[in-house]
Amino acid sequence: MEINVLDYIQNRNFNGLKQRLAPLQPVDIAEILEELDSRNLLIVFRMLPKETAAGVFTHLSSKQQEVLSLLSGDEELRQIIDELFFDDMIDYLEEMPANVVKKILKNAPEAERKLINQFLKYPEDSAGSLMTIEFVDLKKQMTVKDALEHVRYTGTNKETIYTCYVIDQFRRLEGIISLKDLVLAPANTIVGDIMDTNFISVHTHEDQEEIAETFKRYDLLSLPVVDMESRLVGIITIDDVVDVIEQENTEDFQKMAALQPSEEDYLDTGVFPLARQRIIWLLVLMISATFTGGIIQKFQNSLQTVVALTFFIPMLMDTGGNAGAQTSTLIIRGLALGKLEIRNIFSVIWKEFRVGILVGAILALFNFVRIVIQGFPVSVAATVSITLLITVILAKIIGSILPLIAKGLKLDPAIMASPIITTIVDALALITYFNLATWILGI
Amino acid sequence: MEINVLDYIQNRNFNGLKQRLAPLQPVDIAEILEELDSRNLLIVFRMLPKETAAGVFTHLSSKQQEVLSLLSGDEELRQIIDELFFDDMIDYLEEMPANVVKKILKNAPEAERKLINQFLKYPEDSAGSLMTIEFVDLKKQMTVKDALEHVRYTGTNKETIYTCYVIDQFRRLEGIISLKDLVLAPANTIVGDIMDTNFISVHTHEDQEEIAETFKRYDLLSLPVVDMESRLVGIITIDDVVDVIEQENTEDFQKMAALQPSEEDYLDTGVFPLARQRIIWLLVLMISATFTGGIIQKFQNSLQTVVALTFFIPMLMDTGGNAGAQTSTLIIRGLALGKLEIRNIFSVIWKEFRVGILVGAILALFNFVRIVIQGFPVSVAATVSITLLITVILAKIIGSILPLIAKGLKLDPAIMASPIITTIVDALALITYFNLATWILGI
Repeated sequence: MEINVLDYIQNRNFNGLKQRLAPLQPVDIAEILEELDSRNLLIVFRMLPKETAAGVFTHLSSKQQEVLSLLSGDEELRQIIDELFFDDMIDYLEEMPANVVKKILKNAPEAERKLINQFLKYPEDSAGSLMTIEFVDLKKQMTVKDALEHVRYTGTNKETIYTCYVIDQFRRLEGIISLKDLVLAPANTIVGDIMDTNFISVHTHEDQEEIAETFKRYDLLSLPVVDMESRLVGIITIDDVVDVIEQENTEDFQKMAALQPSEEDYLDTGVFPLARQRIIWLLVLMISATFTGGIIQKFQNSLQTVVALTFFIPMLMDTGGNAGAQTSTLIIRGLALGKLEIRNIFSVIWKEFRVGILVGAILALFNFVRIVIQGFPVSVAATVSITLLITVILAKIIGSILPLIAKGLKLDPAIMASPIITTIVDALALITYFNLATWILGI
Repeated sequence: MEINVLDYIQNRNFNGLKQRLAPLQPVDIAEILEELDSRNLLIVFRMLPKETAAGVFTHLSSKQQEVLSLLSGDEELRQIIDELFFDDMIDYLEEMPANVVKKILKNAPEAERKLINQFLKYPEDSAGSLMTIEFVDLKKQMTVKDALEHVRYTGTNKETIYTCYVIDQFRRLEGIISLKDLVLAPANTIVGDIMDTNFISVHTHEDQEEIAETFKRYDLLSLPVVDMESRLVGIITIDDVVDVIEQENTEDFQKMAALQPSEEDYLDTGVFPLARQRIIWLLVLMISATFTGGIIQKFQNSLQTVVALTFFIPMLMDTGGNAGAQTSTLIIRGLALGKLEIRNIFSVIWKEFRVGILVGAILALFNFVRIVIQGFPVSVAATVSITLLITVILAKIIGSILPLIAKGLKLDPAIMASPIITTIVDALALITYFNLATWILGI
């Protein structure tokens, strides 16, 4: 967005600025506000129409939200908060320091304070922490006409009115009905007759990853959340689930690169947290790689006899690591998307064995020719190439087995990715290499 | 789903089976049908109620869709197809062999045949290939009452009625209005007065990755697609975009593991296609790793003097590779999610430089102590540890620069991941190592 807010403010051209901001979406305005210092942030934020302000506030970073919360008066802050959807308010409160939370709870009515405290207690990444309370509830005795009347009367500040929830006197969920069905049905139809009783719902403690799976599998727009007594306590909407999907993917990317998962944006993360996120795995893997060094040490006599053997160690290690990483990535991704199960383990191993032979043979052949052309003895070329073939096959099999075993042990398969596979395959490659060398070259 | 369909069929208990299937969602029924041979598939499919059948058909694999298409009579197939949403039909036709497509086009009315052919021509991964034509269009002169009447009249077979599109006489898109706004507005309001003219739309040739970004950024449920003359030609709905998001993530996972991207499921892919997906990058990386071998060859005299130097090569290579992979993954992911831009390059490098010093120093210290304890000379321990520190810093900087440069060159940053970074860092690590060794150990 090429709007120079500071120019407008310096020239005190507030009307001009208002007009420039008016056609923008809240998320775009939030992006502009992100760059402002606290004084200008407050000036521009106060300029926004009430309906827009809530959307903009939701999209601001916690840093800017905190600034606004501290600079606004109690009454003003109260008005902003009142306009937020309940789930956005909870997300915001979760990120605020204690003094801001206190300031807000102090001014909230008793009932709301209780509800907020209850929601803040749901475990992170659970259905409870994802859901919102702004939904439309109906009774099954209602006619479609009454139901639409009710939607009209109560729907203004609901997060979605496209799915309505039919509850009994104890607030137990009995059925769901889409606004589409209500709008398309004759006015005197009874809601109970056309509501869907084969609905899918989740419990408050369900994990967000499962919830995302459910949305994807059934192409849902929203999903009701019930408590232990089957009472409807909230709904989850697709926009929040899309964020969960990206978050879960990010977590997998991080685990697969030997990083401790973190939800914080890179640019907002300091040097020390970034280092902490990386050091543990690097240390573990470094120590593991020491064993690989130990293998070389054990065979140092062979190496001193035929020093040329050393030249091919990097190529063997890298190719083995890459071959294993390819396979483990495909398997991890297949498991994450539900396209692969542990029961497929034998067909996967058999497939990878054949792929390994095919790919390994091509690489080995290419390599053999290259080494001979470079003037090394055929026996050395043969040793390296046979090692390469065996390494690639082993890499493919290990890369497929380990993620599946992890899944079987209820661990996250994503940790069985390139870094660990590489370390294991390196060791196996070198053991194969030196044993073959001893045998073929007779050293 | 533990339903033994074969038992029901063998006992000719068709009513029992119908009752067992009735409460299931289409995707769950499709999963059950996936396991059946062609004869039983047809038996069970014919048993399904018409409304359910279309949903089940959409969720079947192309293999089973093809079986049904070939076994069904012309009229029967026509009826299945008529129930499909237009975008699902196009997805299905895209996967079918020529004889099935012919069979369907032969029986389609002229207008539909033209439309199908036009849609089949949109580039894969474009807005055109994602969109559907089942949307509700309104005129801005309508009152809310007329509009709701129109929705009721035409809405039954629309993919979504939750966003309606206001078009002029030339079908140019003038505004959008949500069903929520229509339902909540007084009956005599004019649509043109309450429609949103600040809407977001895309062109038919827009790439699906951009479209997914737009949905995520603006929390959309649907998005209108217009042609070059701003005429509304279709809409894209969130359920298809969720699939695109997962597809784009899969593509990134694959590229980052040196695989040619493929959309096919692992279990459905044969050994040869799998090998083809992997061999090119393995070859390229293997040849690159040869240079690393060349570095060792150049310094073979040093190695023969101090053979202990060889023992630490795997550890240096692995740690460098892992350190680089961590950084490149964070940067690639940040770029993919739009949280990082090329303009951040200098702050990223500066941050990674400091993280590299911190992490590298810890690893180097740990390593130094270990090597000395193992009984190697302090000079060797120092050489290895200083190399490790420098390698980690270099790995962090290279891991951050290369994806950003790729982005700047309009290449996909995902190719600058672990495999390439590892190869480059390996070479740099060894050059550092041997030069340091020559200097410190005086060889």
